[in-house]
Amino acid sequence: MTLILALDFGGTKLAAAVMEGDDREWRQYARRLSPPEANATTDIEIMVELATSVLGGAKPTAIGVSFGGPVDAIAGNVRLSHHVPGWENIPLQQFLQEKFAAPVSIDNDANIAALGEWHYGAGQEYESLFYITISTGVGGGWIINGKPWRGAEGMAGEIGHMVVDPSGPLCLCGKRGCVERLASGPYMAQDVQELLQTGRRGEVVAELIRNHPPVVTGKIVSEAAELGDRLAQEILYRGAWGLGVGIGNVANLINPQLFVLGGSVTKAGKRWWEVVRQTARDTALPEVNFQIVPAALADDAPLWGAVALAKNEGK
Amino acid sequence: MTLILALDFGGTKLAAAVMEGDDREWRQYARRLSPPEANATTDIEIMVELATSVLGGAKPTAIGVSFGGPVDAIAGNVRLSHHVPGWENIPLQQFLQEKFAAPVSIDNDANIAALGEWHYGAGQEYESLFYITISTGVGGGWIINGKPWRGAEGMAGEIGHMVVDPSGPLCLCGKRGCVERLASGPYMAQDVQELLQTGRRGEVVAELIRNHPPVVTGKIVSEAAELGDRLAQEILYRGAWGLGVGIGNVANLINPQLFVLGGSVTKAGKRWWEVVRQTARDTALPEVNFQIVPAALADDAPLWGAVALAKNEGK
Repeated sequence: MTLILALDFGGTKLAAAVMEGDDREWRQYARRLSPPEANATTDIEIMVELATSVLGGAKPTAIGVSFGGPVDAIAGNVRLSHHVPGWENIPLQQFLQEKFAAPVSIDNDANIAALGEWHYGAGQEYESLFYITISTGVGGGWIINGKPWRGAEGMAGEIGHMVVDPSGPLCLCGKRGCVERLASGPYMAQDVQELLQTGRRGEVVAELIRNHPPVVTGKIVSEAAELGDRLAQEILYRGAWGLGVGIGNVANLINPQLFVLGGSVTKAGKRWWEVVRQTARDTALPEVNFQIVPAALADDAPLWGAVALAKNEGK
Repeated sequence: MTLILALDFGGTKLAAAVMEGDDREWRQYARRLSPPEANATTDIEIMVELATSVLGGAKPTAIGVSFGGPVDAIAGNVRLSHHVPGWENIPLQQFLQEKFAAPVSIDNDANIAALGEWHYGAGQEYESLFYITISTGVGGGWIINGKPWRGAEGMAGEIGHMVVDPSGPLCLCGKRGCVERLASGPYMAQDVQELLQTGRRGEVVAELIRNHPPVVTGKIVSEAAELGDRLAQEILYRGAWGLGVGIGNVANLINPQLFVLGGSVTKAGKRWWEVVRQTARDTALPEVNFQIVPAALADDAPLWGAVALAKNEGK
């Protein structure tokens, strides 16, 4: 009986789980938030504890790892984390292989989530799909011709930095009007906060951030938009428009069957989905057909993808 | 000894050629311009003449066909031609199979040219490339993971209708600022002509179109730009900018090793290539590497691709 150990190094949390054979539920599952002063060493220590605990003395047949940041999937090294310091060039695959005496496969969270949704979630039975996460950033992973496609150097999926409005606001990447600059949670929150400070009315937002600290978040933008706040709606639906243009452009370029959307911003409500879908439809050529559906695996997508990766279904 | 018959139904010309075994040169080659009142029937008649002539009584082992318009490559039917009337839903594959008693494979010219450049041209030894033709339109074909990728419904490659400037000029597709609207020959010519009519100075262009009919063409825009005409330069390099943004966006999304550029507009001179390359580099993320090179097979790319297709190298 095969025993798969799945590990998820997220930006703010760590999770480990064990699955047996062809099961579709976890035999053991454990999750912990990263401590406030987390670094690579504390992350690894916590993960070894979690893994040891879920294994309960058993030996894994194979280990799959999702990492929340750029990795060199072939060499098995983490390149860096945008959230946790100390991850530069850590040979995570080799370390885990020696620690648990089992073969380890590793990939970044966007590719892994695409793999998870493809094997176990919204993308089952599709030959081609693009998974997009819209959260603190915007990124994605590809399945093409019934296989994951990571790009010539593992950099594919960066829809976040597609320019959709060259006269739009400036992104950290140096360009204007990128999808991520318009559609990601923190940028939308920043835009609403700045417009409030210039005197724009946003009464619902103002009410929602009355408590300390008086900071707008992506979630508050969504909530205020649902409650009818014009300012929040303007920024939220501009983001949905930007994402929709990006998806329509991608549909014309690659003509995948399916787009699967995950991440916190996809919980922004029905109207957000309508704007994304309508804009994508308007942007794509009339002959180009596709569906846009929500991710099915939610927060556990990386663990499910890690199982698929460990089972060698990612080759 | 295998004998491959390659056929190219272009928008304005028809070509047929025969290649033997693993040769890299044509045994027989024939080409003819379409007559002024061409339709599907006259195109097919001429092509049968050309094919019969290049075969010289020999029986082909297999036949590869490039068609200059949308085709259903699986069913073997032409969908339509944007240049020649009467091609709607013609079962070209079946007709040729019965006529020449040999297996026939068919695909559109962009996919075929990608295949040709990959097997015999600028893309040899690459695992991933995007071929783009910039001519009367802008379109392309993909090689991903060492295989052609045509899209879920054969519609992949439409970089031409990627929106790069939502406040740009209106395209026939109904959107603004598509790559094709900015970068294709006829649209650039139209823009220069219209700006001349509104009184904008364009002395070199005016000189070049002094003869009847006084019509600006894409070629004239290129020539005038090379000769220092400011108006022609403005339009030509705006087109190069639009194409460069498109290529940079594609690099971020798919991370192919190589972009191969073909079509008449790629002959617009050194400065055009510089603007395309620089804009693509500025648009792509710093970690995303790629090369942009000219197509190697020029006008014969469809025939070369048809050989690869007939040899089953397109599967």
